[in-house]
Amino acid sequence: MPKAPALLPEGLRDRLPQQAEAASRVTRALVDAMRAHGYGRVSPPLAEFRETLGGDDDRTARDLLRFTDPVSQRTLALRPDITRQVGRIATSLLAQAPRPLRLCYAGQVVKLRASQLRPAREMLQVGAELIGSDSVAAAREIVGVAIDALEAAGIGPVTIDFTLPDVVDLLANGPLPVDADIQQLRDELDAKDAGALTRIGAAAYLPLLSATGPFDQAIADLRAFDTSGVLTARIDALEAIAAPVRDRVTLTLDPTERHGFAYQSWFGFQIFVPGQGDAVGRGGGYAIPVGEQEEAAVGFSLYPDPLIDAGLGAEDDSDRRIFLPLGHDPALAASLRADDWQTVAALSDADDAGALGCGWRLGADGPVAV
Amino acid sequence: MPKAPALLPEGLRDRLPQQAEAASRVTRALVDAMRAHGYGRVSPPLAEFRETLGGDDDRTARDLLRFTDPVSQRTLALRPDITRQVGRIATSLLAQAPRPLRLCYAGQVVKLRASQLRPAREMLQVGAELIGSDSVAAAREIVGVAIDALEAAGIGPVTIDFTLPDVVDLLANGPLPVDADIQQLRDELDAKDAGALTRIGAAAYLPLLSATGPFDQAIADLRAFDTSGVLTARIDALEAIAAPVRDRVTLTLDPTERHGFAYQSWFGFQIFVPGQGDAVGRGGGYAIPVGEQEEAAVGFSLYPDPLIDAGLGAEDDSDRRIFLPLGHDPALAASLRADDWQTVAALSDADDAGALGCGWRLGADGPVAV
Repeated sequence: MPKAPALLPEGLRDRLPQQAEAASRVTRALVDAMRAHGYGRVSPPLAEFRETLGGDDDRTARDLLRFTDPVSQRTLALRPDITRQVGRIATSLLAQAPRPLRLCYAGQVVKLRASQLRPAREMLQVGAELIGSDSVAAAREIVGVAIDALEAAGIGPVTIDFTLPDVVDLLANGPLPVDADIQQLRDELDAKDAGALTRIGAAAYLPLLSATGPFDQAIADLRAFDTSGVLTARIDALEAIAAPVRDRVTLTLDPTERHGFAYQSWFGFQIFVPGQGDAVGRGGGYAIPVGEQEEAAVGFSLYPDPLIDAGLGAEDDSDRRIFLPLGHDPALAASLRADDWQTVAALSDADDAGALGCGWRLGADGPVAV
Repeated sequence: MPKAPALLPEGLRDRLPQQAEAASRVTRALVDAMRAHGYGRVSPPLAEFRETLGGDDDRTARDLLRFTDPVSQRTLALRPDITRQVGRIATSLLAQAPRPLRLCYAGQVVKLRASQLRPAREMLQVGAELIGSDSVAAAREIVGVAIDALEAAGIGPVTIDFTLPDVVDLLANGPLPVDADIQQLRDELDAKDAGALTRIGAAAYLPLLSATGPFDQAIADLRAFDTSGVLTARIDALEAIAAPVRDRVTLTLDPTERHGFAYQSWFGFQIFVPGQGDAVGRGGGYAIPVGEQEEAAVGFSLYPDPLIDAGLGAEDDSDRRIFLPLGHDPALAASLRADDWQTVAALSDADDAGALGCGWRLGADGPVAV
């Protein structure tokens, strides 16, 4: 028998009540936690001009689901990411707003292609951006906000893996010049390929490969490696960022890790949850282009869908779901709803409390377990 | 000087904090009210195959912003409406779920073109669908849920304008046959064109044009007009739907109104708010195609954006926004956030409480008004 055609395109899906409600609960908890730190929510559109979504940049353009807009006669794309839209808002509509400007967001993003690890092409992205500074104080705040948000949404225990995106530049332009192309050096470090490092005459960088893992040891290794002191400010900064959160999460360091950090400035982090291979979020410092200038910012993005699929935010509603038989008192029904019950009213004699997911039924003397 | 190019395509826009947060508050209130009546939230995707969004139907296809999906090699469209997606879910993934099936949703929809009255091409749609019945009891429930949701979101006072989509069919196929095409008859009634009605030999329908306006009078006029009794069941049904809500909202009747009701079965309604020319919502009975069969349903959709633009859901945050000077106690800051304060931490000496929107500053002895 031929397989029935799929109802939805590959990578797009429906969320049914339990999961949709879990997604809603998780989103509310994350957004509320960010707002408690003074981050104002913004809502950019689902689609905009390809150029403002980064369509001029090869790396980003690969992700864009593009189409011609019959109204503007221009190429639009669905947003593959909200961070860039928030940067656009900060430097256009909110260009005159006082800095530091704290903004947050939650919404669906759509990518042209799914990745092997993540088959979804549409996903929930939630995040916060602090615009106007990428100082150590800003970095410390944004990491703290991320952890508060994760905790509020019940996501954890998490590991925060720090990285130093410009560490190779600082070294290669300072105490450890290399003959090889700096991009190649970055690639070999990223690949953790000790043999290749030696081959390209960058054996001096080998200790960087082992300054990786649990935070304190990796920081000590990095300090020992940094005999010239060119990394001292970076290392001190990471320790200042780590200090207030070291008792709340597991911290690790991978100084030359670059995955997903192509646009970041001096620090970055990925957020891992045990059992989830892919990072559930990432963040760091970056620069928003403003004409010929740039504005410094720090921020983070979370992608909670895989956690929601695994049960995050799920609640059993049946325990507060009550069946109202025909002829019930509407005022009593309203008072039950005000008391946080979900009422399910019978429309006919055929309606069944249990089949409709109700753990309770309204009897003459009040709720009765079904 | 040439005008700077627009940053966003026509009809798409950013919502800044005050409005984005208002939209979030309104959405939460609406969804929570629908869930309190046992409606489970679902989240269909932002885009799907053109066919399942109604792209085979001329009227709907005009609204679709379409594009070719490089992955499926098929034409997709952004959803112009969520009701149809919910119908698809109800009759596919949830085909075996017990009836009546209560589902609700909230999300952005995108239309190809804006209308003159509504320049937005992307808008928030929130609604509820009761699938498996379009009985009077179902209709009464859905109208009550709509009113509860509107009230919970602070939308009002509202007017509910009822219509009877099949009244012309009942009359023309019964006591008042016409020579003219029934579609033309519907059009002239919709246009309230008394001259044209007479011209096409349908003068007998003229009283229908005046059975319009405040509910009780219009119902009385309709009963007087309905000498054959073919409309008795419809009129009785409308009165049964109206009875529980007549003290909560203003009710009107416009029996031949068809705008937006092309797919509806026996009853429909539009929701008006004073000062908003366009309806803020509509609902009614309809049929979901299931193969060669149909499944009956009732539902409603709300489009709250114009109300949010006009201030619905807006709150002044400054009154609970507190500035934390450098060196503040982090534990105290956390307890303020737990107490529903929004904390804004100084990152440097240059940060200013007032400029950052804070009505309060944390002093040595607690909050001090700025």
